[in-house]
Formats: sequence, structure tokens, C-alpha cells
Amino acid sequence: MPTPRRTQRILAAVLLLLCSLAALSVSAEAKVHHHTWDIAYHYKSLDCVEKLAVTINGESPGPTIHATQGDTIVVTVHNKLETENTGIHWHGIRQIGSPWADGTVGVTQCPILPGDTFTYRFVVDRPGTYFYHAHYGMQRVAGLDGMLVVSAPDGVAEPFTYDEERTILLMDWWHKSVYEQAVGLASDPLKFVGEPQSLLINGRGVFEPFHCSRAPQRQQRRCLQRPRSAGCAPPPLFTAVPGKTYRLRVGSLTSLSALNFAIEGHSMTPLHLLRRVLLGPGQGRPEPVPELLGRLPRRGRERNTTSAMAILSYAGNDPRAPPPTPRPEGPAWDDVTARVEQSRSLAVAHPDHVLPVPPRPDRALLLLNTQNRIGGHTKWAINGVSLAFPATPYLVSMKRGLQGAYDARPPPETYDFRSYDIERPPPANGTVASAVYRLALGSVVDLVLQNTVALNKKSETHPWHLHGHDFWVLAYGDGKFDPERDTARFNLRDPVMKNTVALHPKGWTAVRFVADNPGVWLFHCHIEAHVYMGMAVVFEEGVDKVGRLPKSIMGCGRSRTLP
Amino acid sequence: MPTPRRTQRILAAVLLLLCSLAALSVSAEAKVHHHTWDIAYHYKSLDCVEKLAVTINGESPGPTIHATQGDTIVVTVHNKLETENTGIHWHGIRQIGSPWADGTVGVTQCPILPGDTFTYRFVVDRPGTYFYHAHYGMQRVAGLDGMLVVSAPDGVAEPFTYDEERTILLMDWWHKSVYEQAVGLASDPLKFVGEPQSLLINGRGVFEPFHCSRAPQRQQRRCLQRPRSAGCAPPPLFTAVPGKTYRLRVGSLTSLSALNFAIEGHSMTPLHLLRRVLLGPGQGRPEPVPELLGRLPRRGRERNTTSAMAILSYAGNDPRAPPPTPRPEGPAWDDVTARVEQSRSLAVAHPDHVLPVPPRPDRALLLLNTQNRIGGHTKWAINGVSLAFPATPYLVSMKRGLQGAYDARPPPETYDFRSYDIERPPPANGTVASAVYRLALGSVVDLVLQNTVALNKKSETHPWHLHGHDFWVLAYGDGKFDPERDTARFNLRDPVMKNTVALHPKGWTAVRFVADNPGVWLFHCHIEAHVYMGMAVVFEEGVDKVGRLPKSIMGCGRSRTLP
Repeated sequence: MPTPRRTQRILAAVLLLLCSLAALSVSAEAKVHHHTWDIAYHYKSLDCVEKLAVTINGESPGPTIHATQGDTIVVTVHNKLETENTGIHWHGIRQIGSPWADGTVGVTQCPILPGDTFTYRFVVDRPGTYFYHAHYGMQRVAGLDGMLVVSAPDGVAEPFTYDEERTILLMDWWHKSVYEQAVGLASDPLKFVGEPQSLLINGRGVFEPFHCSRAPQRQQRRCLQRPRSAGCAPPPLFTAVPGKTYRLRVGSLTSLSALNFAIEGHSMTPLHLLRRVLLGPGQGRPEPVPELLGRLPRRGRERNTTSAMAILSYAGNDPRAPPPTPRPEGPAWDDVTARVEQSRSLAVAHPDHVLPVPPRPDRALLLLNTQNRIGGHTKWAINGVSLAFPATPYLVSMKRGLQGAYDARPPPETYDFRSYDIERPPPANGTVASAVYRLALGSVVDLVLQNTVALNKKSETHPWHLHGHDFWVLAYGDGKFDPERDTARFNLRDPVMKNTVALHPKGWTAVRFVADNPGVWLFHCHIEAHVYMGMAVVFEEGVDKVGRLPKSIMGCGRSRTLP
Repeated sequence: MPTPRRTQRILAAVLLLLCSLAALSVSAEAKVHHHTWDIAYHYKSLDCVEKLAVTINGESPGPTIHATQGDTIVVTVHNKLETENTGIHWHGIRQIGSPWADGTVGVTQCPILPGDTFTYRFVVDRPGTYFYHAHYGMQRVAGLDGMLVVSAPDGVAEPFTYDEERTILLMDWWHKSVYEQAVGLASDPLKFVGEPQSLLINGRGVFEPFHCSRAPQRQQRRCLQRPRSAGCAPPPLFTAVPGKTYRLRVGSLTSLSALNFAIEGHSMTPLHLLRRVLLGPGQGRPEPVPELLGRLPRRGRERNTTSAMAILSYAGNDPRAPPPTPRPEGPAWDDVTARVEQSRSLAVAHPDHVLPVPPRPDRALLLLNTQNRIGGHTKWAINGVSLAFPATPYLVSMKRGLQGAYDARPPPETYDFRSYDIERPPPANGTVASAVYRLALGSVVDLVLQNTVALNKKSETHPWHLHGHDFWVLAYGDGKFDPERDTARFNLRDPVMKNTVALHPKGWTAVRFVADNPGVWLFHCHIEAHVYMGMAVVFEEGVDKVGRLPKSIMGCGRSRTLP
């Protein structure tokens, strides 16, 4: 067993996602990667408790897709769910020229029906660590997700070096079905499913009653070797060779939880200092705490879910030996200051990789996030509007001019920021609508997200994810954003680019992007329950410039009536 | 409290379903009945245990539809299930001229997508007691069902008299979700959900641990008044006035169970002696045992589900008083002889209401029912073919000539009845296919269903239901049907007409129908698990005579590509 000191030296673990390098030229020999997936329910025991999961070819999470910058990914999806539809989003892929492949049901396509086949085809134009997951109702909760790794072309130097790489996918897991969760959220009064039963690393976890940490110290080895429940796999094992440097591509596809990720006795160098850090799924506010060993204490919510554990074992050691050190604690779950500090520390680009920010926006939206009671239901709303996905996907209805298929009246650009009290739940005056912000193609847009307290008077972190674009992170602030005062604080010198950003409790976050990707794009809180409850907005830009829509995205709502 | 003797005299309870009277002329003032239904999951406590149910306007079962012969029913269905589709079949309605309204997903329409609206419009051309229920995957198990009552026009005398009528809907109920049930059946090895937790009368039941029969005698009144679990309603109450005659329209929409229905201390006169008895849902072999009081012992499967109970209370009595007599036993669950005898006794039409049978068939299909292992899964097959519903509904693909949308090779007309041993499970040589029997329009077709033992070497009763038609019940037989010997036993003199018929253990059942209804029609075992596992065949007749198909039935599979 290497000493902690030695291992600190030999392992530079590398956090979260990659990074596009504008300097990289795309290889001339781009490949096409074909994948064929059967989407079906199967009984799985991901955390030693058997329950239904939505699987890809029988597995949850699904396989990691590997490709090289410039390649084309073709995924043929057979829906074998019997009565339930699906749709798969390729998280972080901008879908330039292929907006119909974004996989956002209700926005870019009709759902894929049971018995039907749908083919996603898109180019991965930048190296990086991406994800895929269901984007339909709350179906992601049921386990339909995975990773998508895009490498830099051979011979193209990256601004860091490593010997090998590993992918690490983090999930949270409930024993209640996604139906029970969703119907509970739509019920009056709202029924919250509660905290997850388990956290999973690469699809494996241990539900607390089966957890080896409950076993006496001398039995832990045996426990790790033979998980108590039949069908319960041992913890994921990562093997390493002393002296080598490992790049870890870590993705959090949790539906609710914010996690700390650490490797005991090792330090990690975040690879965020490059020009474009795609800081992950946003899901669960995934900013890493580069500290300790394979464990995932949760943060942002009071902790009552057992940490997840994986084993990092050095070649030659017994991979089932218990960890040599007690598992350390992460930051307190309610330590908001630490979280904001971390966000800020990761918001600055590497000096050699700054992508110039347009100096000023053509349009600025000030987006108040509130939890509202609307029509007897608890909803999330942006400037008082809770998004309801229309029966006809926006991309079809807007491109084809289907009147009345969505709410044509635009949503509010701002809220009454002078008098609004973010310390109080909102007045009961929200609406549910399928309204759209229409953006001028090529325009520069500022989005300032303003957090408030929810109906329970608490405020939580919301990870906001933008489809089809990256954005510059201009600032995080506490309290209420004041346009006159706070715009001057924007970092226009060296902001990092991301597609997901944290909106911290009772604070605000400002981002800027260029609306240069013809299509219709969702911008939403990546907590699965929150987007389900309407915490999202829709942007349209240059939909008239979108190419001919494939028939395969149609078949629902009014798209059925098109000639 | 009336004495049993008195009540026997005053209550002629009337069993199961109605009866078309060809002599009845349709009223000239036919009405159009509009209904608007939201289909959504809700948490319901139908048997005192809260679980998700698929509801109509928040209720399971749904509302009873009332109409008069010749009226038009229009049901506008809004699917609010979030990620799950639906489709509603109108059980017993022949859909003459409206085959696209039969509601059989994969046969007559694409599923109705979440967010979409579909309108069923059809004429009820005969008086009778009908049902409606989901016809998609195993969705019926989740509670989407109800009754449809068609009355004879005012002024038209019926061949029986009564003072008032009541509808009684019977269901079986599981605490596991329909997903768990269906995935279990598709798993290798098969996981059977087991017997239902409860039986329901008009959507109410009591799960055994909450059952008043467990309470001491002196506490039963209190128990009946206050069911233990919050949200658990008291048993359904039927009030009656001594001396009046009540017509009971009883429908079994059980998914698995065969039930006995009885009213303690009363006798019932089955109204099956009319020309056309639509002997109900077929579901659960619903032949009644006209005996005793409001209880539903199960039959055909070993009994481990508590009987359901409703209260029949005479005006002026305390409706919450415990029943005066102990609840009697029904026939033994495995008493096949009694079941067959009852089927035979109900297979003869009233002498005044015999609809002449065509003397001979143009075509005869001998349909062997087997349970097979196919491709690692347990399936039910007919002549070795297990039906898989195609992604494109037959009605669309056959009417519009979409090649390759279903298996064009016809399924076998018969099996090797000379050498086949029905006492043994079949050899492993079945296939899964979407094949169709194409019938000449107007031809007379005999169907002889032949039962065998399942893989567990037991043989059970299968209730076979034909869409789009009634059939004459020509004979029930034991053992193996021999065409030369047994055809002579067919009752061509006075057979009853039905749309559902029992196929008893290790026996056979012969029916005859006229293929005179242009469309594509399913014929299947009405046990929800069995049709899900492929125990069905499809008939096409005169599809070229079907009128212009509505766009609303399209949108799935290859129908999306139609001009």
C-alpha cells in the first residue's frame, strides 16, 4: 500500500470535463461511430435493492461513447419500453447544424414511441467530457444516462499530460419509481420523494442497510468481498500504477444531489484552467472539492444519504482491502460560502486560453427564480412563468409556422427588481405557459439569474444548463442583482466558458452567450424535479435558418397534421 | 331487515350484460353524448393502500357512460400521463363504420401521446352493458376502465321488467405497478407478480390486513363505519326498496381473476336468455354463480385473495349493520366441471330470440393455445405464433399498403391435431410475429380454440374476446377437438351470441362469426398478462372498404411517413 505522501506525488487526478482548444485542427479522417441501443426496463440491483431501471442494452448507466474531435456519432435508439416514450439529450454537444438531434422532447423532437426507432446523428466538434441522458418528463431519474468522451485528435498536444484516463459517472438513486416521484410533485399537496436512498459511482452503490461501514472493522474485508445481497456487486474498482498520472473524467448525472468528490490521500488538479471548461452536467452543483478518497458526501441539502465509495487500488495490492484511513468529512452540507467561493475560483479561464467576451450585450434578461403555487400545484417559475412543454415541439411549430402550438406572447424580460423581496416567497400570481424568448441570430445575450427563497423560505443552489451553446460566466453575487451597480462587476477579462452554472442561495449569477446557433434551445435548472415543475425557459434563434426538419422528429401534437 | 325468504321474493337481481334486440327500432332522436376526459396518474387508496392509479378525471374506475341505442358517443381524451401513452377500447361495441375508434393500440390506432388529445366517436347501435378500458401494454391493470350502459329507446318494451337498475364493476388490484408486472413477465426467468392483493367492487375494496372480517364480531359495525386507514372508503352501498325488482348490470374488468358473484339471501335471474347475451368482459371468466350475497370468491386459481364485499341494504335499515348471515363459500376454485357446466348452461339462446346461424363455415381455424419459451422469454402462442403488436397499426398499414410494416406471411390455419399431446408442454419451436389472418369480407368463419397445459403442466381457463363482432357459441368440449367427430356436436339450432367466451382447461371451444365488419380486429385472451405475452390473433376483413382514415390515428411507426 503506498503511503499517502507517495500517492500524492504519483497521482495527479484530474477533475471534471474537458475543454475545447480552438487551436486544435480537426483531423481529416473523421470517423462515424454507430451505436444501436435498445431502451427497456429491466430489474436491476444497482445499490443491492432490486428495482426497475430504464436501461440501454440492459445496463444502467449506459455505455460510455468514445470518439475523436470531428467524428460523427450515430445512435440508433429502439424504444422497447412498452407504453412509455423516450428521448435522449447529448449534454454539452451544441448540435451545430443538427438542432433536431438535441433530444429534448417537446423542444426539438416528438418523443420516441414504444416500438419505434429514432436515429440521432451529430458531429462532436470539440474534445471534452460530455454526457447523455433522457430528457423527457423525469425519466432520467430511472437510470437512462451515460458518458460521451471526445478526445483530441492524435498528434494534437493538449496543454496537460497524463498516462491514462478513467471515466467516473455519479448518480443518485431512489427506490420509488419515477412515476411515484413525478406524480407526487404534481399532487396537491406536493409529495416529495425525499432524499435518495443511495449514491452510485459508475452505476454501483450500496443501500445503507447493506453498507460495509456498518460491519465491525475486522469484517470489513469480508463485507467488501461479498456484498450481502445477491446481485449486489462490490464497489467499483479503479486500479492504478504508482508513478503514473491519471486523468479522471468525472460527471455528475445526479437528479437532485450536489456531491463532493475526493480521493483519500491524494490531491487532484482540476483541468478547468483551460479556455473552455465544460463544468459538467450542472446536475447537483458538481463543483469538486479536491481532497480525499472515493467518497461522495452530499452537499446543499441536509445529509441523510450514505456516501458512495469506490476503491482506488495500486497494482499489486489486494483490491478488496479496506481503505487504510478513516473516511474524512467534506464541507458542511449547508456551507454556502464555501460553495460560492469554489464557484468563483473556477470561473476564471487559464490566461493562455481566454476566449474574448463580446464587450456588451445586445439584450439582457433578468430571470427571477421563484417557487409558486399555481392552480393548486407547486411550480417553479421564471419571472412568474412556469414552463409547460407543448404537445408539438417548438422546433417544428416555429420552423413550420404552426400558429397556436405554443404561447406566442413572450415571457417577461425582467422582474420588479427594485421592490421585490427575495427573502419572501412570491405572491401567488404565476402562470403556466409555453412562451419563448426569441433572440436575434448572432446577438449577444446576457442572462442574470436571480435566486429567492422557496415556499418553505429556504433557498437552494440551482444548476442552470443551456442547450446548444456555451456561455461566459461573468459573475456570481450575493443578494439581489442591481443592474446599475453589479454590471460593473462582470469579469469581461478572462471568464471561463461553461454550459452549466450554479445559482447559489439568495444570490445571483450572470452569464453571456452569443445566439449564433439556429434552432430552439432549452435553458433550465438541471435538478430533474425542478425542470419537471417548470424551472426552464426556451430560446429561439434563427429558426428560419434551420435546414429541412427530419420527418422522424414529428408525429405528435400538430406536427401530425403537417403535409 | 327483511328475512331471506322475503328478499328472495322481492329482489330479482339480474346478472351480467345485455342483449341486443334486433326488433328494437332505433329512436329517431338519436343524441350525441360528449365527454371530456383527462387521463392522469393519481395516488389513490382503492383498497386502503395508497398507490398510483391511471385515472379518468381523477377517478378509477372512470365514470359510467349512459346512452340510448342509436346515440353517438364522443369522448375527447387528453393524455396527461407525462411520459406514457394510452388508448381506450370500447369493449363490446362493434364499431361498424368506425374501425379506427376501437382503441386497440397497434391494431386500430397509434397510441395517444402525452400532451395530445384524441377523440373517439362511435355509434352505440344496440342496447347492452358494455365496458371501456385501456388497450395498450398492460395499462388496464393500472385502473383505466369503466362501464358503458346503452339503454333501449323509450317506449320499446324489453322482454323482462324491472323497477330500477344498478351498475357493478368488478376489478382485481395489485400494489405493484403495472411496470413491475409487465417487466416481470418479460424477464428471464419470468417473475410473476402473484395473485392480486385485493378485489374491488365499483373501485372499492379492503386489503386483507384492514379487513373487517378480522375484527371481532362485536366490533364489525364500528369497523365498517370507520375503515382503519385514512382515505379508505367504506364498502360500496346498494340500497333497495322491498318489493322492487332491480336489474344489476355486472361487469368484470378483472385483469386475472375469475370471480363468483352472489348476493346473500337472494336469488338472481340471469338475463342471458335473450337472443344476444354479451357475456361481458370475458375477463376472468365472468360466468356468474347465481347464489348469495355481495362477495367475490375467486375461482380458477388457488384462492389467496380476500373476497370483496358490498352492502345491500333495504331502505330504513342501518346501512352499516354487519350482514346477518355468515358469508357462504362459492364453488371450489379448482372445480372445473362446475365451470364448464355453467358455460354450457349459458350457451343456449332464449327460444324466442334465436338469431339463425349460418349452416356452415367458409373457413375454419383450429387455434392451439400454448405457452412457449421463445428467445429466452415465456410467451403464449397460437399455433406456435406469439403475437407482437407492430409499431405501425395494422389498420393504417393494411389500408394504406405499407409493405413490411407487419409480417405478411399468414399464421397457420391449424396445428397437428392428430399427434399433438395437449397434456404436455409444447416443444420449443414457437415464433414471435405480427402475422394476420385475412378473411374474405362477408365470409363465415369458425374458430375452434384448443387448450393445452402450460409450461407448469397446469391448464387454466382463458376468456377469449373478439373485437368488432359477436359470435355464436357452438360448443364447449373436453380434451382434444376432433374435426370429424366434434363438428357434428355444434349447436346450430339455438346458440347464444357473445363477444367473449371461455376456453376451459384441457378443453376446446368452438364459435362462428360472420366477417362482415370492414377493418382489422383483435381476438385475444382477455387476461391482461396473457395478451401481453402474445395470446392473440389478428383478423383483417374488407380493409379496402374502410373509409378514409383519420389523421389522428397516425403518428407512430411508418404511418409518420405517409403523405
